[in-house]
Parts: sequence; structure tokens; C-alpha cells
Amino acid sequence: MRIMAENSNVYAERVEEIRRLGYDAVIISGTDPHGSEYVAPRWKQVEWVSGFTGEAGDLVITKDHAGLWTDSRFFIQAGQQLAGTGIELHPTRVPDEVTIPDWLAGHFQQKPVRIAFDGLCQSVGSIQTLEKALRNSYGLGGYELIDVPDMLDTLWTKRPAIPHSPVEWLDEKLMGETRKEKLAWLRGEMQQKGCGAMFLTALDEIAWLLNVRGQDIDYNPYVISYLLVTPEKAIWFVRNVSEVPDVDDVVLADYGVLEDALEDRKDECGRLFIDPATLNYHTCQLIEKYFAESQLCFGPSPVILRKALKNKKEQEGFRRAFIEDGVAMESFLYWLETSVKGGAQITEWDAAQKLASLRRDIEGYRGESFATISAYGPNAALPHYVTPREGSALIKSRGLYLVDAGAHFLYGTTDTTRMMPMGRCTRQEKEDYTLVLKGMVDLTLAVFPEGTAGCQIDALARRALWAAGRNFGHGTGHGIGFYSGVHEGPQAIRQNFNPQPLLPGMVSSIEPGIYREGKYGIRHENVVLCREQDKTEFGRFFGFETLTCCHIDLSIVRRKLLNEVERDWLRAYNRVVYRMLKNRLAPEVARWLKKKCR
Amino acid sequence: MRIMAENSNVYAERVEEIRRLGYDAVIISGTDPHGSEYVAPRWKQVEWVSGFTGEAGDLVITKDHAGLWTDSRFFIQAGQQLAGTGIELHPTRVPDEVTIPDWLAGHFQQKPVRIAFDGLCQSVGSIQTLEKALRNSYGLGGYELIDVPDMLDTLWTKRPAIPHSPVEWLDEKLMGETRKEKLAWLRGEMQQKGCGAMFLTALDEIAWLLNVRGQDIDYNPYVISYLLVTPEKAIWFVRNVSEVPDVDDVVLADYGVLEDALEDRKDECGRLFIDPATLNYHTCQLIEKYFAESQLCFGPSPVILRKALKNKKEQEGFRRAFIEDGVAMESFLYWLETSVKGGAQITEWDAAQKLASLRRDIEGYRGESFATISAYGPNAALPHYVTPREGSALIKSRGLYLVDAGAHFLYGTTDTTRMMPMGRCTRQEKEDYTLVLKGMVDLTLAVFPEGTAGCQIDALARRALWAAGRNFGHGTGHGIGFYSGVHEGPQAIRQNFNPQPLLPGMVSSIEPGIYREGKYGIRHENVVLCREQDKTEFGRFFGFETLTCCHIDLSIVRRKLLNEVERDWLRAYNRVVYRMLKNRLAPEVARWLKKKCR
Repeated sequence: MRIMAENSNVYAERVEEIRRLGYDAVIISGTDPHGSEYVAPRWKQVEWVSGFTGEAGDLVITKDHAGLWTDSRFFIQAGQQLAGTGIELHPTRVPDEVTIPDWLAGHFQQKPVRIAFDGLCQSVGSIQTLEKALRNSYGLGGYELIDVPDMLDTLWTKRPAIPHSPVEWLDEKLMGETRKEKLAWLRGEMQQKGCGAMFLTALDEIAWLLNVRGQDIDYNPYVISYLLVTPEKAIWFVRNVSEVPDVDDVVLADYGVLEDALEDRKDECGRLFIDPATLNYHTCQLIEKYFAESQLCFGPSPVILRKALKNKKEQEGFRRAFIEDGVAMESFLYWLETSVKGGAQITEWDAAQKLASLRRDIEGYRGESFATISAYGPNAALPHYVTPREGSALIKSRGLYLVDAGAHFLYGTTDTTRMMPMGRCTRQEKEDYTLVLKGMVDLTLAVFPEGTAGCQIDALARRALWAAGRNFGHGTGHGIGFYSGVHEGPQAIRQNFNPQPLLPGMVSSIEPGIYREGKYGIRHENVVLCREQDKTEFGRFFGFETLTCCHIDLSIVRRKLLNEVERDWLRAYNRVVYRMLKNRLAPEVARWLKKKCR
Repeated sequence: MRIMAENSNVYAERVEEIRRLGYDAVIISGTDPHGSEYVAPRWKQVEWVSGFTGEAGDLVITKDHAGLWTDSRFFIQAGQQLAGTGIELHPTRVPDEVTIPDWLAGHFQQKPVRIAFDGLCQSVGSIQTLEKALRNSYGLGGYELIDVPDMLDTLWTKRPAIPHSPVEWLDEKLMGETRKEKLAWLRGEMQQKGCGAMFLTALDEIAWLLNVRGQDIDYNPYVISYLLVTPEKAIWFVRNVSEVPDVDDVVLADYGVLEDALEDRKDECGRLFIDPATLNYHTCQLIEKYFAESQLCFGPSPVILRKALKNKKEQEGFRRAFIEDGVAMESFLYWLETSVKGGAQITEWDAAQKLASLRRDIEGYRGESFATISAYGPNAALPHYVTPREGSALIKSRGLYLVDAGAHFLYGTTDTTRMMPMGRCTRQEKEDYTLVLKGMVDLTLAVFPEGTAGCQIDALARRALWAAGRNFGHGTGHGIGFYSGVHEGPQAIRQNFNPQPLLPGMVSSIEPGIYREGKYGIRHENVVLCREQDKTEFGRFFGFETLTCCHIDLSIVRRKLLNEVERDWLRAYNRVVYRMLKNRLAPEVARWLKKKCR
């Protein structure tokens, strides 16, 4: 029997409503007007239409087809959530991927093809790519691109408004750099590019540049806003402007007056720099109304790389954050193990709540950095499992439990995955557990020359799995922001050819895994700081300092699969964790941890 | 005292002669009309002008500057050969590389800039890239590109003619595929692209497709020619056509009548497919005279990948070639060691001659696949050392000797580098020797999923060196043709982001190294065949079979730097080499090898 997703008929009907808008194709994107990875409820448009709740996904609806484009992290979830909706899964980031532009360029017989989208939620870059594909296929005049800002407003009657949470200006002593210094640096960068001003739309870049945070998006401490940095001023377009506390060096303006302001201020900008990867198409059209082509300069924002290179203060903060977080994690793991062994009925959801409660009292805590993945047994086979509030699985005293959780603190952001063997494990579980761990250690131990990009060392985390004919479908590591998004560019450690070298000061996760559908999932994740390790006649060499401070359970490790160097590293790591945490843990937890780290 | 290269004044004068041609810039490329890596004497134009003999290099001469663009393999050599000529080295394949187009685009103040080149020796692709850079910088009308075919003819009075050596049609039983089958396959490919015909200019592609070989270029068994494959015919434009033996399925035509033939035959071609990476600019202009734009289709030649996927017969041939070659190599190494120990005065050149003489009698031998690198001590620090006929170094009974040599056989092509410790070695020599060897073994042992490209596993060969703050500046491995070029695409194992996955049937070298200028150089090189290794629920996994059959000296290996798996592999490898070769070696060589392989 085919399983139907709950409310699948609701979603099938919404697809029909969109078809009735009368376009040949409608694109519904998973992002917001700021190119965000995580979005406020107002922009969960893909979820509203399709029921799919994964963080990455775009829909295309034509008269004869409805498709969701998403990557391997969400294949299983999409399969479940789309069942019965008539929406088909189009896998992305796979070797034979057909992207949305390519698919649209190949789908239609009749011309012109009329394709509609919400230009607020499409980057300039994505529309340029689309247009190129359409032009190649249908020729100029063979297609029409129709920008309908807030297109879903007419159908989605209870659509949430744009949020506005309290704005928090950060204590600049904790940041290592003042807003003034950051703005001066940016103006210098602009000058080098022959530009006077820059228009910023990416929320994480604005948050970093202004040393400001908000709570407009779950798990992402940003303020929904735009920023115009001119040679003299930083003009911040923000919602609910009257309630935003004033600071000396930022001019506040209303989010809604952007268009007027662009017109008014165009003369003080000189040439304007914008990043087409995050600027939305609709706003770009506004800008092009007031700025001549020669007055605009498109390129990747220099803030992205600069923000990823953590200064000394930020590095210190990260170290502290992982120790604070380690105390909560160890207390949590202790509680979970002893409770389940004691016969308590604990669900995945209960466990996540417990962890959250342990973190809540930490000084400078500012919330979770993503929804805790608390997954027992087969549920952990979904790399991005969402632990349900109702009816989550009971954690039993056998097999493997996975917790992937992180928090924001005023002094850093954390992201840790730990496995807890709850009792008897199978031989395969132990082998997988060990091989994944081996991969994490091998990459942690890597030393590499200046200029090396993540994709050039990603294999080190996979080699042991590959040798056993195993693999995992997601990246090995992502950058992590400083009290900012838990996913941060420009670097990445994955198979994709991202040319960005890994540089001293970058903070990244290392999180190999293995997923056996219907059985279990395993992931070990530490966060590391890239540092200079060596300087020789052959150049500079970099390596990683592990920031995460939470023991790794070695009880089910298959010793023979590890070499001496790996075994030594693991023993030393647990020893350091115990030494760092013992005086901060409750006595019974410290005793328990001492045993675990032996 | 600055060392002047021999004849540096001759080269300085030639640069002046080129300046007197009156252009703002002259580009002299290191390739020939067929985009070859290695060229016949006629096209050694860079050497004639500058004295630089490296296989990769392009010159740019302006009124105020003369520069040679080459990569790290040739930095030391270029430094020596250019001394006193006034020609400066511009490094390529380095992080801050400034390419010729970028350099030319940034160099001139006055417009229009008049840039001349020999269009026969520039690919369409390279001129497109140049034109784009110039247009961005100087604007349309701000530059002029002047194609002067055979430009140097007026200055280079003794310039050699285009060579024509005997043509050899190969025994198709040795190839696994007939010319007819290959042409049928290519016509199928063309049909899929909506093209009727293909015009081929790359000599290795023509040689593969027609099962034909020649000796027009040193070490490269090609016939200088063009090939037009129409739906019905294969028309081969070749020099000295009257002396080329006839075959049924190829129409012979003279190399010189290409232009007329293109005009005559354009109607039978339909849409014509050409690869802009190897087609020269001058010939492309001819084609565009007779073919409308809509009749031309540019793209990468499908022959490149197809040729790299060796069929079963070719794989068998390679195995045989490496065994035959191994017999010569072992006999050579035995001779060298015993002679030097016995007090004989042997130079690097003598050694290379000895090796050549040992190969000469092998059945099916067709010459060396590149100039043997026979290098003792500090000379081996030049990765592409050219052993001089006169005055080459004496091989002494201490330190390290490097031999990098290969041969063509009717049944395959070889390429092997072996190190021979001639007596006492320093601690650093031993350590470097071991770390480089460790890298070779680690990459050989790699297992990787379908879709993996060389740059994604290149680090496995470097990890051990990196960990010790060491590295090497060249790629780790190149493809190898079947009785064809010893450098073959499309795959490569190196840091560069070449997206071509490694596929079963590909033959590649694995040759990490380390170079300490003024001291010594170390390189260990085996050739491997990519094969399917495993198929699991996680997909297909590939690995390598080692083809090279020549022992690796383990006497100076620092055991502690290797793990058990690596030690086991090396012991097993030497055991297999001995077993495969013992009955084919002279008794005293077999006895010697037995000891070496213990």
C-alpha cells in the first residue's frame, strides 16, 4: 500500500490553485528576499504549497508536472512528505542532476513559454542562469519571465507577516572588532574596486558588519533588513524602525522605504557594488531603475570571506562556547544513559527538551543554533531528521542514539554530533561507527599547504569508508559563524569543486556519517579551527585545532580498524575533554565521564 | 656573479629581430598546428628564439619586455637557460598566476594594441580567451589581432621543414577494435550531436581512430595530418601522400590541399563538429570561409575520453609491455649498481644509453616514449632534467640516482621512475625517500566511488609529505596512451579541479616526488589501471591495479614512517615483481633481484 502523507490532498489542491494562475510554469523558491538558507514562516512557501519541510528545496509547477528539487539530505524525507501530493522529487547535487533551468529549457513544445516567479525570492544570479538556459533553448522571444512579487499572497490567506523581533547591538569588547573598524575596512575594499558604496542584502553579512543581532528567523540571529554603505554613512533599512535603539554610526531607515531611498541617495553612492548571489531579482530591478549600468558593479561580497576569518577574540569566544556547551552535553549524555538504563521511558523529543533545558542557564546563551536532531535507531538514518513533538520514538536500551545539536552564545556558536550506544550493538553498527570515527580523526589530523581547498582533502574523511565500499551523501564540513548562522561560507569541506582555500581563522565542522535506511544512522561531528601549523622551505602548512569539547564513546569501537595514530588521538582527545570539564560538572557526572574517558 | 646561459647574446638578438617586425606584441607559442604537447623541430620556435628547451612554454615579446610563461616543472631550468637573454620568467599554474591574456590586457597604455601571432600554432580556444581579455580591457577597436602564419620563416633561415616519416598501419588484432568500428562509433557520436561530420586535428586522436602510427615527432608515434570524417568517408590529409600505403577504408589526400578539400566537401559534411581546444586558429578561419556559422558545432572531442578507456586487449597489452619493460629495467639497475660498485666511471648519459640498448631488442619495441631522465644527485632536483650528451654527471657510489624512462611497444606504452641508492644516504634523503614512497602506496591503495575525479584523491599521495611540511610542485599522475603519447587526457591526478572522473580502463601514472635544489630529487612512479573494485548498496567503487613491474629498493626506507598496510603492500609488490620476472632475467640478475626483493 502506498503511504499517503498527511493532508496530501490539501497540497495537491494548492498545486492546482497555482496552476489556475494561468502561467506555463511557476517557480516557488525556498529562500527569502535576502537569499537566506533558513527563512521566517512568511517565506516557507515551499512548505505551504507542498508540505515538504526540508530547509533546501524549490518547486516548479507546470500544467502537466509538479516537481520538488532538493538534495540527498532530504531524499527520504521528501519521499515521505510528498507521497500522495502528485509532486515528484528531482534530486540535486547528484552526478546526473537536471537543474531547474535545464529542466525548464527542455520541457516545453509551444512558444513563448511564460514562466512566473516571486522576484523577491529569487537571486539575480539564479534568474540570469535561468534566462541563459531559456534563451539557448527557445531563442530570444521564445520565453517570457514574469516577476510577481509576493505571488502567493492571493492564495495564502493566512500568510504570516514579515517578522520584527528586538534588535540587539552587541558588546564590541566580545567581537574583537568594532563596527567602525569593519565599515572602514569595507569602504577600503570598495575603493579598491572603484566603487563608492555597497548595497548588502544578506542578513548574516549585515549582522556581522554592524555587530547586531535579532531573532527574526528561528535559529538564525539576524534582523531582516537591507544595508547601504556609502562613503559617509551606513543606512540600515529595518522593520519597526521606531523601536530600534539608536547608535551613533548607523542611520536607521524603514524597510519599506528602500525604493525611495535608493532614488534619493544615488548621487552619494558613486559606483554601487552588489553581490548578485544574494540580491533578489525584484530589488535589483528597482536599483537598475535609478542607477545606470555603468554605475553598477556586480561581484561576490568581500564580507563573506572576511567574516569567516575569525579574529583572536572570536577564536577565544569559540573555545569558551564549546566548553560551556560541553558541560551541557556531558550532563545530558549522563542523564540519558542513566535514565534509560534505570528503566525510564524517554522519547527522542524528551531528550531534546532535556538538552535545551541544560543549556538555557549558561551565561550568554542565545538559543539553539538549529533544531536539535534527537534520533534513535532507524530515525537517525535521515541525516536531517526532524524530531517530532508528538509521537517521537522511545529510546530503548540497545542500538544507537544520535544527537546533533548546537547553541548560540554571545561569544560563539556550537554544533556537535555525538553517538550514544544505548546497549547491545550489531557487528555492522560497530564497524560503521568505527569507520566514520576513523574518517573524522583522519581529516582532523590533516596538514595541508596554503591554497588547499576543502574538496582537495574531503577524501581523507571518506577513505576508510570507501575502502569498505561505503559512503555518505552529504558534505563533510561546513563553515560556522560567530554567534551567527551555523552554516557559513565561503569554505566547505565536500566533494564539490569549491575553490575557496581553507585559511587560518576559519571554523568548520568535520562530520562524516553513514546512513542505512530502516536500520540506523551514524554521524560523528567535531568543530575545528584552521591554524597555521608549519612553515618550511616548501611553504606554509595549515591544520586543525579541535574546538568541540565532549567525549566520544569508545566502548563499541572496533580497535583493529584504527591505526596507532588514530587510537592515540582518540585517547588523548577524551583525556583533554575530561580535564577541561571535570571541575565544572556535577560530581556524579564527573565520575561517570572519568570512566567514559578511560 | 650572474651566470650567463650559453649563447645568451644569440637569443637576445633574436628577441630584437622579432621586435623589429614592428608589432606591439608578438606571441610565440610552444605548440604546433595540431595542438601537440611535443612538437617536431620545425615548431620548436620558443627554443629557437629563447634557448629554453622545456616542453611547455610560450613567449611574449613587446617593445619593452620579453617573457616566458611556463610551469613549476621548468622554473629552475628556465632560470638557467634564460640567464643573460633578457627574457623574464612568468610562472604559470601558481596561485597568483597572471596568464598571457591577462598580462597583455594590462600592459599597454596606447591603443590600438597590435598583437601578432602565428595562427597555425594557436588554438581557437586560446585566441578566444585572448580576445575576450583584450576586449574587456581595451574595448572593441582598442586592439588588433594579426595572424601571420609561419611568421618566423623570414627570420629563421634554416627552419626545418614539416617532417614525414613512414606510416605504419597497425595490426588490428593487437588493438581490440578495428578502424571500422572506431569510425562507426564516432559517426554515432556525431549523429547524437546533430552533426554529420567531424574535423580532427589532434594527432593522438587521429592515430587512435585510424589505428595508424608514424615517427614525425620525437617520442610521439604520430603522423602529422588532419582527418575529416564524413558520413561516408574518412579523408586523411597527410604529407608525402604518394608513399603512404593504401588501406580500404581511408581516402588519402595531401596535407597541402586541405583548404580546397574543405571547400569541395562541405556539402557532404552536414553540420561539422570541431574541438576548439586543438583546432588551430588559422585553419579555423579557413573553415569559417566555407562553412556558415550554423553549419559549425564546437565542443570537446569525444575521442579523448573514448581513447582513454582501454579495452581488454589494450589492457592485456599494457600488462605485457610493463613486464617486457621490467626485464630491461631490472637488467639496467643490476648493471648500474654492480658497475659503479666495481669502480666503473659511468655518467648519467652512459646509463641512459645502456637502458636504451637493453630495450632495443624487445619484440615490438618502437622507441622511447620520452627522453630518459637519468639524473644523479642534485641534477634530480630538476623534475624534468634533460640528461646532456656531453658532460653529464658521473654517478658516484653514494646518494641517490633517479631514472625516469619509458618505451613504446606495439602493445603498449610505459613510463617508470625508480630511485637507486648508490651507497650512503643522509637521514633526510632516507626520510624523503620513504615519505614519497608512502604517498605512492597510499594512492595506489585508494578505493573511491564512481564519479571521483583525480583532484579529489590527489591528497592521498601528498598527505605524508604535507604532514612533514613538504610537498612537490607537479601533478601526481597523468594518463598514458596505448602506443601513443605518454601524456594523455582527459583525466589527471593533481590538485587542479579537472572534473573528469577516473573510470575503469584508464591508465595513469602515480608519481609523487620531492625536490631539494642543489641537493637531490626523489620520485617514485608506478603506472596503474583503474578497475571496478566493489559494488555495494552505496554504489560502485573503483581502485587501481599496478601495471609497472620493477622492484622498489627498500634498503633505505625508514620503516617507522610506514604503517603495516603500506609495508605489506611494498613487500608483496616486490615479491610479485620477482615472481613475474625471474625466469626472464639472466641468472646473475635474477639472483641479484631475489636479494633486492627479500
